[in-house]
Amino acid sequence: MEGGGESATVTPTGPGTSTGPGASSGPGESTGLGTTATPASPGSADLAAQAVAAHCRQVIAAVGGECVAVKLQLACFERLGAAGWRALEQTVEAAHEHGLLVIADGKRGDVPVSAAVYGQALFDGVDTPWGRAPGLGADAATVNPLIGGDSLDPVLESAWAAGAGVFALVRTSNPGAADIEDLTVEGGGTVSDRLAAMVAGLGERYAGESGLSSLGAVVGATAPEHIGRLRAAMPRAVFLIPGVGAQGGKVEDLAAAFTAGRASALVTVSRALVGAAGDSAGDPSTAARNAAAGLRASIWSVSG
Amino acid sequence: MEGGGESATVTPTGPGTSTGPGASSGPGESTGLGTTATPASPGSADLAAQAVAAHCRQVIAAVGGECVAVKLQLACFERLGAAGWRALEQTVEAAHEHGLLVIADGKRGDVPVSAAVYGQALFDGVDTPWGRAPGLGADAATVNPLIGGDSLDPVLESAWAAGAGVFALVRTSNPGAADIEDLTVEGGGTVSDRLAAMVAGLGERYAGESGLSSLGAVVGATAPEHIGRLRAAMPRAVFLIPGVGAQGGKVEDLAAAFTAGRASALVTVSRALVGAAGDSAGDPSTAARNAAAGLRASIWSVSG
Repeated sequence: MEGGGESATVTPTGPGTSTGPGASSGPGESTGLGTTATPASPGSADLAAQAVAAHCRQVIAAVGGECVAVKLQLACFERLGAAGWRALEQTVEAAHEHGLLVIADGKRGDVPVSAAVYGQALFDGVDTPWGRAPGLGADAATVNPLIGGDSLDPVLESAWAAGAGVFALVRTSNPGAADIEDLTVEGGGTVSDRLAAMVAGLGERYAGESGLSSLGAVVGATAPEHIGRLRAAMPRAVFLIPGVGAQGGKVEDLAAAFTAGRASALVTVSRALVGAAGDSAGDPSTAARNAAAGLRASIWSVSG
Repeated sequence: MEGGGESATVTPTGPGTSTGPGASSGPGESTGLGTTATPASPGSADLAAQAVAAHCRQVIAAVGGECVAVKLQLACFERLGAAGWRALEQTVEAAHEHGLLVIADGKRGDVPVSAAVYGQALFDGVDTPWGRAPGLGADAATVNPLIGGDSLDPVLESAWAAGAGVFALVRTSNPGAADIEDLTVEGGGTVSDRLAAMVAGLGERYAGESGLSSLGAVVGATAPEHIGRLRAAMPRAVFLIPGVGAQGGKVEDLAAAFTAGRASALVTVSRALVGAAGDSAGDPSTAARNAAAGLRASIWSVSG
């Protein structure tokens, strides 16, 4: 992960009914639509996917200057099928054009043989008899570590080869996180603590010159009482921190995440930024940009 | 889940170098290629995806008569991007034409707002301003329950509305399953046992007339010592059982899974079937079909 200490990211969440081009429209939208490849006989999914790609490009253009990365929720693209996946590829391209890192938020996790294939899908692609299929080209991806360390290794190897990073779920931001992640384990600590130990152990092998590892951790902002303990357990991990804004987490509770350095945590905000645009009486792009700038300032004030 | 007690499934694993059309070629392959839509300027991924779709159609045609369902590993399609997702859609169509149920093996799991979107993607689609985007139309999907019950609920609701099912990971077939799933939890039992309790509890609300629930469980064949205990904990769950064949699991160890009825477990086999075709000196389709028929007979012999 690069990015030199900037810590806000933005997450286009796809074609919500309130943010799709059928609802509010912002500057550049029609231009964006015009640049999207149109199939011969576009169906509903094709048209919606074009709108999603245009919307994402617009959000990226509006707030990209205030962020270091964009976290793309893969479900929002997948629900539009092949056309949605094409919109995902176009959004990755738009983010890279704007100098943003792309975090593919798919929370994949599978047995080793399939985990290796997810690594190809997310990062650097695969050789086929017809040449290289390029893969998504993400700069990082989220993974689910439930089924064990052997499910992470192949993804980490793909990421490492591509100069990319991986964030393993450790303590998520949803209420249900208490069900399994917070269970106390025989011998002490919780399931999250064991996941943290796994991340710290595997991540040692993937540490860069900065001292930070390419294996990071997802640690939600909604239960900040865990953050200090998890930071101590994973001193080399970059923390990806969702849950600020719509889910109730507060930036001022996150200082402990940054004790490994300003570049050691990324705070992701989605609905609060797109919502700022939707709620604004003025130019939605300016409103979203201002919201992102305000968030960045508040993160910098707690990141030391 | 329907299917009346047949228990073998087949899993095309996508464009492996040993099974792709560039390697062994079987009857019907060129016909399959001809029926695949060709983009204006096909790239490597497009050509590979057409081959994957043709390969899957061929495998389905060869062994579909011996199986009740096909489990599609989504990673194998995703690594070919939008073209791969199109091949996935075509493979779902081919499976349905042959009367097979489709299990989308993506092991998704996310916070509630995103889990609902995965439900739309996997099952019944979403309304857009341009009409309905149809979704994948799977008959079942695998999900990862690490982050808690609230991540399962929205997927279950989508599945229920579509007449489909969900399989939550409970005790997987990979060696790394021991890392987290087998941890002993304070108060007794393992993490897998807690996942089983969650599945049993949530699944009560989604039980059909058969007594079986639309929320099932993934329980690997490689550690059969867990199966009896997990069956007792989840009496209404259909078990999806990977790990037979290449991973070392044996059909004769699986009788305990079927104690809730012949329709209460599905044994999935992938590499052993496609491998039988590749290893055969004769017609590969016949070899795969014979391997599937043999597997089905051995499953019936243990399923009571």
